Amino acid sequence: MRQNLAHTLMFTARTSTDGVIERDFVLGDIPGVLWSPASGPERAPLVFMGHGGGTHKRWPAMTGRARLLVTCCGFHVAVVDAPGHGDRPRTAYDEQEIAALYRAREAGEPEGPIVVRYNARLAERAVPEWKAALDALQELPEIGTGGPVGFFGLNMATAIGVPFVADDPRITAAVFGLHWPDALAEDAGRITIPVEYAMQWDDEHIPRAAALALFDAFASKEKTLHANSGRHKELPRFESDSAARFLARHLRPTAVREV
Amino acid sequence: MRQNLAHTLMFTARTSTDGVIERDFVLGDIPGVLWSPASGPERAPLVFMGHGGGTHKRWPAMTGRARLLVTCCGFHVAVVDAPGHGDRPRTAYDEQEIAALYRAREAGEPEGPIVVRYNARLAERAVPEWKAALDALQELPEIGTGGPVGFFGLNMATAIGVPFVADDPRITAAVFGLHWPDALAEDAGRITIPVEYAMQWDDEHIPRAAALALFDAFASKEKTLHANSGRHKELPRFESDSAARFLARHLRPTAVREV
Repeated sequence: MRQNLAHTLMFTARTSTDGVIERDFVLGDIPGVLWSPASGPERAPLVFMGHGGGTHKRWPAMTGRARLLVTCCGFHVAVVDAPGHGDRPRTAYDEQEIAALYRAREAGEPEGPIVVRYNARLAERAVPEWKAALDALQELPEIGTGGPVGFFGLNMATAIGVPFVADDPRITAAVFGLHWPDALAEDAGRITIPVEYAMQWDDEHIPRAAALALFDAFASKEKTLHANSGRHKELPRFESDSAARFLARHLRPTAVREV
Repeated sequence: MRQNLAHTLMFTARTSTDGVIERDFVLGDIPGVLWSPASGPERAPLVFMGHGGGTHKRWPAMTGRARLLVTCCGFHVAVVDAPGHGDRPRTAYDEQEIAALYRAREAGEPEGPIVVRYNARLAERAVPEWKAALDALQELPEIGTGGPVGFFGLNMATAIGVPFVADDPRITAAVFGLHWPDALAEDAGRITIPVEYAMQWDDEHIPRAAALALFDAFASKEKTLHANSGRHKELPRFESDSAARFLARHLRPTAVREV
C-alpha cells in the first residue's frame, strides 16, 4: 500500500524564539514542524521525532524535546502528525479502534491488545510517510544527505519507529521506549545501531517482562535500558536530557565532553 | 564486632592538579584519599565512594570518578581501602577466600557463590569503618555535618554499600551496581533514598534475573536501572557521567540545569 506521497516540503509559517527557529511545513497533506538553531554551522544533524498515541506534532513533550535538542546540541528536529492524529482526518477504522480503546479503559480491561494491534496498523501507514518526510528534509541544504540522523520516539512513536528504523539505513542512533514486543520484536532484531530504551518499572499497561523482552530483542551491540520506578505516564523528565546526551554522543561524536 | 575505631582523620600528603586537591589520610590504620575542589564555596557536599574487589582506593576507576565529581559538581569525594585491600593486610580468611575464587575461576566454575559469601563477610568488617570515616570526614569544616552525602560504589562496594546506606541516614542518594541479590535484598528493602543501579545485560557472572531482583528490592520511590549490553567488566564509561549527574541532581538540586 505505497501511497502517492509528495516529494517536496512546503513551509507555511516561521517563528523564532530564544535561538530556535520553528517552521511549519506540509508534505502533501501531511503537516509537520521543523525546529532549527537560529545560528550555527551551515549543516547540522537531524533528529526525526514521533509523537505518542492520541497526541500530535506540537504536544508539549514534542516542543520541549525539540527545543532541548536544538539548544543543547545544535540539531535540526522534525516531527509530523501521524495518520489520524493532530490536523489529519481519522478513518472509520481509526474511530473504531479509538472507541475500542475507550471501552476497554472504562471496563478496566487491558489496553495492550488494542494498542498493539492499532499501532501496528498505523505503522503500516506511517512508515512510508516518514521515509518520504526524511527524503524531503534531506533536500534542505541545512540538513543535506549523508549526515547522521537520529530518531527519538516513545509509545506509539516506538511502534512506528522500530519498523521505520529497521528499514532505513540513514538512521544511525535511536531512542525508543514504552511499548510491547508482540508486533515489534522481529523488526527490533534487525536493528543494529546504538539504541537507548526507556521503560517504566511499575507500568500498569506493559508487563515488566514484556518491556524487557523488547529491549532484549534489539540486535544492537550498543544498547542501554533505562528503567525508572513509576507508572506508564510517569517517565521522569530527566530521561529527555539523557536521550539528548545519547543522541549527541552518537550524532556529534567529536563534540565536547558531556556532564 | 564493633571495632575500636579512630575518630580523627590525619592527613599525610597533599597534592593539587588541575583544580583538584588530593589529600591522603589515615583514620587509625585505615588509609584513604579525599579529593576536593581547589576553589569554591566554603562548604560542599561529600560523595563517599567504595572500590571494587581486588582493587584499592587509588584504582583508575576511583581517581577518574573522583576527579569527575570534583570538577563537574564541586563535591568532596572520599574513599578508603576496604579490609584486606590496598595498603591493608589480609587475614587468613581473606587469603582462603581469594584462593577459593582463583580456583573457581581456573576450573570455570561460578564465581558468584564465593563473591557473595566473601563480600558479605567483608561488609561486616567495613560498614563500621565507613561510618567512622564518615563521622571523621564530617568534622572537617569544608564538609560539616547536616549537609547532603552521596554514595557511589559498584561491585564489592555495592555489597558493602547496601548495608552501609541502609543503616546510615546521612546518605541521601546512592549509586550501586553489579552485584547479586542473595545477601543484599533484605537491606535494599530498607533503603528509601533515590538510587541509580547499573547492571550489565550480558553479565557472565551475575544472571540477568538476579540483577533485576536486586534492583527490584530497593524500597526507593525514585529508582533508576541502567542496563547496558556487554559483559561484567564492560560497563560503559558514560555511566560515570550519568552517576555524576544523578548525584548532582540530588545533592545540588538548585544547581544549573544539566545537559
